Amino acid sequence: MSGERLTQATPISGFPEWLPEARLIEAHWTDRIRSTFERYGFTPIETPAVELLDALLKKGETSQEVYTLQRLQAAPEEDLSGKIGLHFDLTVPFARYVAQHFNDLNFPFKRYQIQKVWRGERPQEGRYREFTQCDIDVINPDQVPLYFDAELPRTVHDILADLEIGPFVIEFNNRKVLEGFYRGLGVADPIAAIRIMDKIDKIGPVEIERLLVREVGLIGDQVKSCLLLAEIHGSDSSVVEAVRALGVQDDLLDEGLDELGYVIGELADLPADRIQANLSIARGLDYYTGTVYEGKFLEFPTYGSICSGGRYENLAGTFIRRSLPGVGISIGLTRIFAKLLKEGRIPLGPKCPTTVLVVVQGEDLAGSNRIAAALRGRGINTEVFHQGAKIGKQLRYASGKGIPYVWFPPFQKGHPHEVKDMTSGEQAEVSPDSWLPSAS
Amino acid sequence: MSGERLTQATPISGFPEWLPEARLIEAHWTDRIRSTFERYGFTPIETPAVELLDALLKKGETSQEVYTLQRLQAAPEEDLSGKIGLHFDLTVPFARYVAQHFNDLNFPFKRYQIQKVWRGERPQEGRYREFTQCDIDVINPDQVPLYFDAELPRTVHDILADLEIGPFVIEFNNRKVLEGFYRGLGVADPIAAIRIMDKIDKIGPVEIERLLVREVGLIGDQVKSCLLLAEIHGSDSSVVEAVRALGVQDDLLDEGLDELGYVIGELADLPADRIQANLSIARGLDYYTGTVYEGKFLEFPTYGSICSGGRYENLAGTFIRRSLPGVGISIGLTRIFAKLLKEGRIPLGPKCPTTVLVVVQGEDLAGSNRIAAALRGRGINTEVFHQGAKIGKQLRYASGKGIPYVWFPPFQKGHPHEVKDMTSGEQAEVSPDSWLPSAS
Repeated sequence: MSGERLTQATPISGFPEWLPEARLIEAHWTDRIRSTFERYGFTPIETPAVELLDALLKKGETSQEVYTLQRLQAAPEEDLSGKIGLHFDLTVPFARYVAQHFNDLNFPFKRYQIQKVWRGERPQEGRYREFTQCDIDVINPDQVPLYFDAELPRTVHDILADLEIGPFVIEFNNRKVLEGFYRGLGVADPIAAIRIMDKIDKIGPVEIERLLVREVGLIGDQVKSCLLLAEIHGSDSSVVEAVRALGVQDDLLDEGLDELGYVIGELADLPADRIQANLSIARGLDYYTGTVYEGKFLEFPTYGSICSGGRYENLAGTFIRRSLPGVGISIGLTRIFAKLLKEGRIPLGPKCPTTVLVVVQGEDLAGSNRIAAALRGRGINTEVFHQGAKIGKQLRYASGKGIPYVWFPPFQKGHPHEVKDMTSGEQAEVSPDSWLPSAS
Repeated sequence: MSGERLTQATPISGFPEWLPEARLIEAHWTDRIRSTFERYGFTPIETPAVELLDALLKKGETSQEVYTLQRLQAAPEEDLSGKIGLHFDLTVPFARYVAQHFNDLNFPFKRYQIQKVWRGERPQEGRYREFTQCDIDVINPDQVPLYFDAELPRTVHDILADLEIGPFVIEFNNRKVLEGFYRGLGVADPIAAIRIMDKIDKIGPVEIERLLVREVGLIGDQVKSCLLLAEIHGSDSSVVEAVRALGVQDDLLDEGLDELGYVIGELADLPADRIQANLSIARGLDYYTGTVYEGKFLEFPTYGSICSGGRYENLAGTFIRRSLPGVGISIGLTRIFAKLLKEGRIPLGPKCPTTVLVVVQGEDLAGSNRIAAALRGRGINTEVFHQGAKIGKQLRYASGKGIPYVWFPPFQKGHPHEVKDMTSGEQAEVSPDSWLPSAS
């Protein structure tokens, strides 16, 4: 073996992985996210990691980020080489899924999907080549009730609050408000103006003003109104009033304000500093047509969005000749978890899920196994030390892995069972048929 | 839109996906598998979908099955195109993980890993291009206690019994017994003979005899002994006695029989027809050196193995210059689930995880929302019908999705809440603060 060349066991840039103590927490997070999604009645689906390139490349703007698959030694006649690629989001696979299984699904179809996605981007903080997204969407033929525009951010709010990720805010807006407002102002190309306005957080109002004038041909008063609109935010009806106070008249604006007001009203019971309307939110992607969402860490304002989404008119339109509008939000699990892990905000605990280590007295593995079987039968995660060894060595194994309790079987007949609490150091007589770990 | 070319929303051969009612059950299975793994103290890890090709191609025999990744429009100077591939099992990633994080892990390291793997094979029944494996392994520097050779199949037995997959058997053997027996018989190339013997299930004893004679040069008495050995199976010490009764003398054989006898003894409390020694099991892969495992459906004997594994001397040896032996088993989740689904053995239930649908009386969405919030607060998965509608339409939504309970808020002040059990059709007065679904 010593003469063999070694293969480097090194991380691949942009493909994060965690040590057991972090992975245990990430898995626990995923369980809690699933649990909340299901609490609202979203049903899980899972799609393959790959889609046909045809389907992936419909959204031309991201085509350079797609990883395609090749077989090393492909038999040309039967092979998919070069025809399939890894999905870069969960929206395209969802649209394909709904179109493919249309007749087997019940509508409105509320689904959640927690999977990895892949993008061939240059990695940087918050940007990975492989990362986990947690998506919920509601899709329905012809028309999706506005009800879901409020239910989705409420669900995500519940999750982010439950995960204790620190201060965050989920902001929402309505594209109809923006488009109607710009149209009412007499802006010739509202979409182009929205796309510029979407960058206000990154480049600031001065540069925004310059771009609006130079690239979309706005004049001074129009720019001023746009910037005033972008400053409006809040969590009650004053938001709608403030927009109306700018005096712009447009049918689409009215429609958007009705929708925005509805969502604000539905979310009024949630903490105003965690979820609110913000008229500067636009979301660059062209396919959002109504409500849009964007969440961020308040402590890390320049870090990328931690959740985002919106309402779209017809996402599955590339697959099926019928109107399938929807509304959805995606939570960037890896982006959130990796940041908090890096910042030391994830309180790391044990390195394994074991609650009890049963030590081996002398060579009596069989006796320890019987105790372990009784504990496991009552739902307690239990390991047996794997061989006879000095008690000190067995205790070091438990403390090294962060196992909270160590069980001592009777070392001779008539002696009681004892359990040592590794945190407090206390040791007490117990019975394998009734002992329970203290709730933590 | 009608003029646009549609992209086909069709399945990609070898990449299975399920409708919601099946996916709900598959996800539930995964939860139960995780729960049992953790009950024995295995800790979860997750590795990226990709590894460096260098690492993947060490096992030359499968190189043609590896999918490599290419970026569509790669910038050559910074790109991984052609240097990374999707993992084809979870063993290579695990070996790389242990080598990379060696100083941060606690040994013996007991890990589980439930992830998809990819193989560019021609799909057929039981063979997929994308499928989920559930692996447990124990790895330890220099030496892995024999204890784990018994703990691993016990864990897998618990899982397969818990999942109610129908009649199965997990068979085990010890490569030292085979190698020592063949050596003791005077067979010049025991490994070549084992590789032939491993096919006995597929090609039968007559063809095995022919190959042993022609390709490994065995003579009549040797062949007879090999075939007699392969017929020995059972779940108690008679197995070891039967091997000894064949009269072959060899040190490695003795060592192997001690180990095999230990594992048989440790598993003696489990049902003999579900887990037993079988001296015909060899496992073709060269890296197993001691105990080997293979599980199968009893009703579908020609279907591929549903779990397999064994003990290896030094799996991470390509990455790190120290001895890291281990023992592991992999459960073929997709292979098991897909077969039972196809055979109609998976009792499909609801199409969503919702327990209660709260109907909307008149247009009082707010009232229904309050009830839903109370139910969700008590851990009950609850949907609200998304708009005012005729009660019949709301009931059809619930029955279409298989939602077991429908909640009727008071239709006027002073009227009670009522819940309809959609299975029995019974309807009863209830309170949102105390009602619970009946356990099912």
